[in-house]
Amino acid sequence: MAMTGVLRPGHISLRVLDLEEGINFYKNTLGLVETGRDGQGRVYFKAWDEREHNSVLIREAESAGVDFFAFKVADKATLDKLDADLQAFGLKTERIPAGEMLETGERVRFEVPSGHLIELYAEKTDIGNGQSYVNPDPWIPDAEHGIAPTRMDHCLLYGPDIEKVQEIFEKVLGFYLVEHVVMEDGKTDLAIWLSCSTKAHDIAFVRHPEPGKLHHISFKLDSWEKVLRAADIMSMNRISIDIGPTRHGITRGTTIYAFDPSGNRFETFCGGYDTYPDYKAVTWTWDEVGAGIFYHDRKLNERFLSVVS
Amino acid sequence: MAMTGVLRPGHISLRVLDLEEGINFYKNTLGLVETGRDGQGRVYFKAWDEREHNSVLIREAESAGVDFFAFKVADKATLDKLDADLQAFGLKTERIPAGEMLETGERVRFEVPSGHLIELYAEKTDIGNGQSYVNPDPWIPDAEHGIAPTRMDHCLLYGPDIEKVQEIFEKVLGFYLVEHVVMEDGKTDLAIWLSCSTKAHDIAFVRHPEPGKLHHISFKLDSWEKVLRAADIMSMNRISIDIGPTRHGITRGTTIYAFDPSGNRFETFCGGYDTYPDYKAVTWTWDEVGAGIFYHDRKLNERFLSVVS
Amino acid sequence: MAMTGVLRPGHISLRVLDLEEGINFYKNTLGLVETGRDGQGRVYFKAWDEREHNSVLIREAESAGVDFFAFKVADKATLDKLDADLQAFGLKTERIPAGEMLETGERVRFEVPSGHLIELYAEKTDIGNGQSYVNPDPWIPDAEHGIAPTRMDHCLLYGPDIEKVQEIFEKVLGFYLVEHVVMEDGKTDLAIWLSCSTKAHDIAFVRHPEPGKLHHISFKLDSWEKVLRAADIMSMNRISIDIGPTRHGITRGTTIYAFDPSGNRFETFCGGYDTYPDYKAVTWTWDEVGAGIFYHDRKLNERFLSVVS
Amino acid sequence: MAMTGVLRPGHISLRVLDLEEGINFYKNTLGLVETGRDGQGRVYFKAWDEREHNSVLIREAESAGVDFFAFKVADKATLDKLDADLQAFGLKTERIPAGEMLETGERVRFEVPSGHLIELYAEKTDIGNGQSYVNPDPWIPDAEHGIAPTRMDHCLLYGPDIEKVQEIFEKVLGFYLVEHVVMEDGKTDLAIWLSCSTKAHDIAFVRHPEPGKLHHISFKLDSWEKVLRAADIMSMNRISIDIGPTRHGITRGTTIYAFDPSGNRFETFCGGYDTYPDYKAVTWTWDEVGAGIFYHDRKLNERFLSVVS
Repeated sequence: MAMTGVLRPGHISLRVLDLEEGINFYKNTLGLVETGRDGQGRVYFKAWDEREHNSVLIREAESAGVDFFAFKVADKATLDKLDADLQAFGLKTERIPAGEMLETGERVRFEVPSGHLIELYAEKTDIGNGQSYVNPDPWIPDAEHGIAPTRMDHCLLYGPDIEKVQEIFEKVLGFYLVEHVVMEDGKTDLAIWLSCSTKAHDIAFVRHPEPGKLHHISFKLDSWEKVLRAADIMSMNRISIDIGPTRHGITRGTTIYAFDPSGNRFETFCGGYDTYPDYKAVTWTWDEVGAGIFYHDRKLNERFLSVVS
Repeated sequence: MAMTGVLRPGHISLRVLDLEEGINFYKNTLGLVETGRDGQGRVYFKAWDEREHNSVLIREAESAGVDFFAFKVADKATLDKLDADLQAFGLKTERIPAGEMLETGERVRFEVPSGHLIELYAEKTDIGNGQSYVNPDPWIPDAEHGIAPTRMDHCLLYGPDIEKVQEIFEKVLGFYLVEHVVMEDGKTDLAIWLSCSTKAHDIAFVRHPEPGKLHHISFKLDSWEKVLRAADIMSMNRISIDIGPTRHGITRGTTIYAFDPSGNRFETFCGGYDTYPDYKAVTWTWDEVGAGIFYHDRKLNERFLSVVS
Repeated sequence: MAMTGVLRPGHISLRVLDLEEGINFYKNTLGLVETGRDGQGRVYFKAWDEREHNSVLIREAESAGVDFFAFKVADKATLDKLDADLQAFGLKTERIPAGEMLETGERVRFEVPSGHLIELYAEKTDIGNGQSYVNPDPWIPDAEHGIAPTRMDHCLLYGPDIEKVQEIFEKVLGFYLVEHVVMEDGKTDLAIWLSCSTKAHDIAFVRHPEPGKLHHISFKLDSWEKVLRAADIMSMNRISIDIGPTRHGITRGTTIYAFDPSGNRFETFCGGYDTYPDYKAVTWTWDEVGAGIFYHDRKLNERFLSVVS
Repeated sequence: MAMTGVLRPGHISLRVLDLEEGINFYKNTLGLVETGRDGQGRVYFKAWDEREHNSVLIREAESAGVDFFAFKVADKATLDKLDADLQAFGLKTERIPAGEMLETGERVRFEVPSGHLIELYAEKTDIGNGQSYVNPDPWIPDAEHGIAPTRMDHCLLYGPDIEKVQEIFEKVLGFYLVEHVVMEDGKTDLAIWLSCSTKAHDIAFVRHPEPGKLHHISFKLDSWEKVLRAADIMSMNRISIDIGPTRHGITRGTTIYAFDPSGNRFETFCGGYDTYPDYKAVTWTWDEVGAGIFYHDRKLNERFLSVVS
């Protein structure tokens, strides 16, 4: 009751072109905490204020992009039920054994029609946020090492058939639509923002012919001033900024889009309103999509719809 | 799935000593939007960014305090189920017919052992936040009229037998414990913060001999700068500030406590971390309760434990 | 002693293409306070926190741009002395009688080699900032009407022969160089930022073949959050944003450049460090001019060097 | 011209009860940069964004308090002229040779009637702010080590005969009155805030029977969010906070007062309006002095008038 089923985004596995460069970026510029490396050559990170062992994995590969994106579910029983529900819906699921990822329990993996691998899991070791659970301070020095987001928050994925994806997320996984952009025909969705919580988005999709693409992985900051600090740190480290600091019309969040050294777009953002499943979804029409995406400029930059990894 | 059962705090009914003075305060100083008055002499308000018709009711009475505090539930079926569950737990429930409150559906009311009337409801008219659901701006002029919180967020209630209250909120209503303060014996809770969402608190209780008391009703602001603005507006309007601007150790929120003209304490706060039901609760020990409540001063002021309405 | 001679920027006279449109923009979007209109058809404004009667004048004309930019000097004796010093330097000065501008004393006008008319004056009526000089509040409702900068802060002018301009400002008017951008030859200045106070700039010049051009008139905001609010208000009012919110490397200020309805670029900015005449000037080299102007993007947009009014 | 004579506060020498404890506090909690130690056992610090070698000296002594407070003047000629002017006014001055303080030129020292030693100097080594003067970044890692103010900004001194002190600062040193608090008689000043620049205060005095006392030494922060961060760091380090975060009515600055481990009060503040010598001074009456000092609480705490070092 209240918070059940799928709880939150849990981890993403990203491909980088050069592992050492990637480690340096995610650790020192983005300011995640490195928590381990495994036998497959994957390096594990978490944001300082996250409690679970990992939320971002990187591995070296020929091309950048996303391997899979996972959600934490309430418990083992929920995992089993959702696995059954996904199969009942007609999706093929795969069980990945506990331990395949460090400190992470069994995962249920399935591919959605947009071409992305999504995972569910119920168990991951709580290693804390660097504080005791007794009388903690509000923040720690790690909160100022690099950009230092508080959490990995959501991702925006590009691929085809987002109606079917939406149906799976809503009907099987219990998400609800928060905002959407309608195309020129006034009917077909260009983009959908979905939540499993009170956050304005836990995952989002944009219609795109090529399957399995990553538009951006997003990290949360506590304030608009931290957004400025993030932009400063990006410039100091010669990180290529796509756009920002600015505000999204959609979700109202303040934001910067930038690229990791391999070309994976990431977002550091703040804000976004509280939302609930009984809320009417907000619609953005085709002629105002510019203001929806970049509220201040009121127009898309060329890269937004074309550059993905 | 995901967000089910009890969704969020929905409304509070407050007693004020002078209705006109109360209306002026809630409308022009706190900056809520007046949405109606009923035949019982109650005046209805909502925060500008709330969508439902009302979240704060005031009525004139001989003494200040809280009449009842309500939660919105997912739907009518949930309302019926929770009513049955509450009765099965041994609580007496009362059905208050739709329309008894303006634009509000049927309510299930019950008294918890701390002496407070809690309500559940499934329906209240969506009157929007002053914006269209198509291509909205991020905020409107009402967002700068008075203190102008975005929402009524939670309340802190004082009364006896908070163990039993906690049991009801957890076992029947699906809330979970986020933080708690333990008394000198190292075992008994002085205070508990409970969530039905990803917010650090949707309701909280402090052990107190007298039942049915209100410590404060809390309103959310978007930033620490809005907290400063709120303090400025309080001073400009000669509102008596209890403490703040400061930070809570508990929930990490930044905050001001102050009193409405009738002596009801209210809070305007920002922040607080995202939390989930699988998170381990944070414990504050008796010797550090000062830092837990007022992180900067690290000690309680005399009023915190003694002045309630 | 201490603060002597030229004190601060005092007023600018701008040309707009449509007076009513201009009045609406400067009053309701930028949020200046209208303080008068004169027989020449000029409309007078001040920022809410300024004390003198006016700081911005607009008049209708065939083309946008700046008529003149003025500085307040310490007193009448200073005005006379600076007039004499300017003439001794070889500049022709003109005395414009008191009252030619509303509530403004006699002005000394001269043209600098960049083709701009600069004025000095010693007297302008103090009409206050809307508060008493006894027990004032820190701000007033006007501080939230439109963007509502606290003051007209400085301007950036484009024209030829900026070496000579710099000599006049330094040797005759007592300004000092705070930062400058050097061209590809490593010697010639592209741009200079000059201060007569502890502010990072009271006036600035960029080398440009066409004389008498305005790059932007700048208005000060109290915080980075007010910069966000300004960008939101610009979007709400369909004001064309040139760039921002972002940060300047030069002066470190956070900023937005946008255009008034007539095409005059204006800036709303916050910050910039305290500076003093004994400070060594900061140099920006040609290869890093992008980071100097727009610190986050690290490159100039095409409009910065080409679009002036 | 423009900025002449006395430019800015340059250094303060403070007495601490335990040198190691003092070094740890000023370096790691307040976050100044240690720049040297001399043969007299004095330890030198500067704020990260200051350019001169030192602005705060501490030495071990039996009692806390201030030894002397100094201002930087424009140049050597100014130093000589002001020395002569001070003597002409009837004050005894002392020349302290260059090198008596590390990297600091000759100082002119004199005692004002409030019992404080004031110094003037024209030369101190520029060691920079940790950045090059060519293409600098807006901030450096030191800007986040401890509270990390940008500068030592001003001090508030307690002592008798502040009328005479004001006369010296105004007539000889070129300061001007920005704000003042009038006592119950409506005539006599309780407190005066004086500026030699566009800052709302470069030095301030409160009438007090005991001479030579320090109320607080003040350090500047860039934003209200940095004020919150400072309060957090104080709590983390168990620094005793006197009051704050809050706002001053006088100067409008946002502020925290706290005590170093020896009992010297210090302030970390942000803001304050731009002011000029032609501005009418703001007056605070006796009945509103509470709002003047602590704008939100609108009353003085007991310590403000009684605890000095």
